[in-house]
Amino acid sequence: MTVLVAPSGFKESLSAAQVADCIATGLLRAMPEAHILKAPMADGGEGFVETLVSAVGGTLHPAVVTGPIGKPVDAFFGLLEGQDMPTAVIEMAAAAGLRLVPRDRRNPCLTTSHGVGELICAALDAGAKRILLGCGDSGVNDAGAGMAEALGVRFLDMQGRPLARGGAALCQLARIDMSRLDPRLANVRLDAAVNWHNHLLGPKGVARVFGPQKGATPEQVVILEQAMENYARVIAQTTGIEVGHAQGAGASGGLGAGFMGLLKGRLYPRYDIVMQYLDLDRLMAQADLVITAEGSLDGQTPFGKVPAEVARRAKQRKLPVIALAGTIGKGVALNFEHGIDAFSCILKRPCTLDEAIDNAAKLLTRATEDAVRLVDVGMRLAGPAILEGPPYPLSVSPPRDMDTSLAGFQHVPLCLGNGRR
Amino acid sequence: MTVLVAPSGFKESLSAAQVADCIATGLLRAMPEAHILKAPMADGGEGFVETLVSAVGGTLHPAVVTGPIGKPVDAFFGLLEGQDMPTAVIEMAAAAGLRLVPRDRRNPCLTTSHGVGELICAALDAGAKRILLGCGDSGVNDAGAGMAEALGVRFLDMQGRPLARGGAALCQLARIDMSRLDPRLANVRLDAAVNWHNHLLGPKGVARVFGPQKGATPEQVVILEQAMENYARVIAQTTGIEVGHAQGAGASGGLGAGFMGLLKGRLYPRYDIVMQYLDLDRLMAQADLVITAEGSLDGQTPFGKVPAEVARRAKQRKLPVIALAGTIGKGVALNFEHGIDAFSCILKRPCTLDEAIDNAAKLLTRATEDAVRLVDVGMRLAGPAILEGPPYPLSVSPPRDMDTSLAGFQHVPLCLGNGRR
Repeated sequence: MTVLVAPSGFKESLSAAQVADCIATGLLRAMPEAHILKAPMADGGEGFVETLVSAVGGTLHPAVVTGPIGKPVDAFFGLLEGQDMPTAVIEMAAAAGLRLVPRDRRNPCLTTSHGVGELICAALDAGAKRILLGCGDSGVNDAGAGMAEALGVRFLDMQGRPLARGGAALCQLARIDMSRLDPRLANVRLDAAVNWHNHLLGPKGVARVFGPQKGATPEQVVILEQAMENYARVIAQTTGIEVGHAQGAGASGGLGAGFMGLLKGRLYPRYDIVMQYLDLDRLMAQADLVITAEGSLDGQTPFGKVPAEVARRAKQRKLPVIALAGTIGKGVALNFEHGIDAFSCILKRPCTLDEAIDNAAKLLTRATEDAVRLVDVGMRLAGPAILEGPPYPLSVSPPRDMDTSLAGFQHVPLCLGNGRR
Repeated sequence: MTVLVAPSGFKESLSAAQVADCIATGLLRAMPEAHILKAPMADGGEGFVETLVSAVGGTLHPAVVTGPIGKPVDAFFGLLEGQDMPTAVIEMAAAAGLRLVPRDRRNPCLTTSHGVGELICAALDAGAKRILLGCGDSGVNDAGAGMAEALGVRFLDMQGRPLARGGAALCQLARIDMSRLDPRLANVRLDAAVNWHNHLLGPKGVARVFGPQKGATPEQVVILEQAMENYARVIAQTTGIEVGHAQGAGASGGLGAGFMGLLKGRLYPRYDIVMQYLDLDRLMAQADLVITAEGSLDGQTPFGKVPAEVARRAKQRKLPVIALAGTIGKGVALNFEHGIDAFSCILKRPCTLDEAIDNAAKLLTRATEDAVRLVDVGMRLAGPAILEGPPYPLSVSPPRDMDTSLAGFQHVPLCLGNGRR
């Protein structure tokens, strides 16, 4: 049996590659003869660069850039091997991710994507002719203004003064000066892998949906919405590009909007990008069974999470799909309608979330073994012979050396009713 | 497919019958066409009477008796229908169970099995000609002296004075007066269902192994060991019966010893009794798959717990066995060598033990569904056709209306190395 292992990472715990290794180990414990294909998955967020570089070959390059709260952070980008043009891979979370914002500084009115622009600069310095930007896990809501600024775009108020960094300042935006944009960008293909469902404006706009996760108060959400509206208006005046309701323009705190509206990059649904690089279709063609995983599996999973995306593609080939998860949450049954046939939680006893995270590798390995053993029971039930294994030891009960038989205990259905007189 | 559901109860949470109902519900959610046979299991402890009365028919009868700390408790016994002689079923835990001893009164030097004797009396009053006593879940360590006292046996010290109740007082035992034993016992068959591994004396003697669970301090364990030794010696002098190292004589704080040594009852391995009444062999003959369960599954399970006993019998018929558990503990893999093919924990997210207990019914139902879905994946994998179900909706990803193709992303293995110059 060939099993395709295509999991997400477990946030704050295991990378996708580690998850795939744990699943493979547990699988082989239960089915030593299984043939395993590993395809650790990523969305556009943390792990995007590592996943693509691991999948197709390439190199990682460190770069110190401006972090989301203005302090320098150690970031990186990747250069892919064997492409038809020199290709750099960047994940925005490396320069402006939520994880880089200390909890007491989580104010998306102020945090900036400036470092993302610096990473693009560094990739251009390294000779990239195509830049592939992964979006996800952001800690900013400046709609890519910081990124564009780092590449030479100037954001000015009514008086022609440069704006402060951060999303809230975009309320004062009156004019965008593109004259100093890095001229190298004109000869570079810019593509971004984004969550296709994220919009910049409207009832499901980025500030309203993601602002609170990044630390915005209700009042700050209102300010950011106004800022995004003004920003979209001035971009349209400047470049003619309408970003307000474009698919994916709301990705990473609106970074998608700046990327398409100011840098004229193109946006793509993130899994189409990732799975093409991972060559998932070719792997699925060889598989009999698919195992996926994510830290949490619930009613939100069908809407753009790795297990659902993997399952969707598996079901095009009618492959059965099992999902493992650290936590099984509300509404999880919805996944049955989207191609996940069965799931299993990795927990083995009552514990805290921190304990589960600390022991995730061991728990996941064991849970995989346990789940595959259940699959194996089913295979035996449906197969031609049931349990033709070695005989089981049946001598746990000690030998009986009593001279009595149990004959008197047989409940013969006759006589005496319930025994009362 | 016919599935035999033969679980234990979950301590402090669900009765065996409730566990069986939850499993049946979850099973039918995943496999609506399955045929289910339910056989809620019991050992000799809590649930013994209810299980047997449910299985063969009969009636439950209340009786107020002396509890383990001397206060009255509401106990009960059962009368079975359709037996070849009027048969009463008693569980000692109903009169002297650990659950009846408040935590701050857990001193097995003092607690008494007196109420068990009173239940036997009540059964005799009801006309029973056979008494079947279930042992397990006891909160006493008086080796059945209290039980025998309630039936007329007198325990005297060197001066001929009656002993105080409780195990420790048996250190002073000098003589046993059998002259006032209830004369009806001579014409009644007395049988007990015991843990066959429990001895009264020796390195695995009852005080040493179980005393601490019942609240004994290390000093009290030593006292109780001496008391048990003295007790066995005086019994041998009185009735000629050697109880010290007899199989099962250590059951329920040594109740087995008093039962065989003073009342001249017979002891049987508890599962032989229970499974004969439940007619488990006949049910297994009809089953394709067995599902069992217990609150906790670990390395101790093979040594006399319900799932292992069920699995042992299932394996004589080469039936696959799945076990569900609230907690999966250390050494659980040992169960694979004893007939359990796969297991699953009922937990779905980090939680406390109390939360797990409070939600056990819902968790167990869902976990059964999830486990059976994994079995079903295996059946499809091994079956003739894979996943010939209805088509899955594949439209979660929104339609792409962009005019670009992804052609540029194919990683063609040629040109340019890693893209650096």
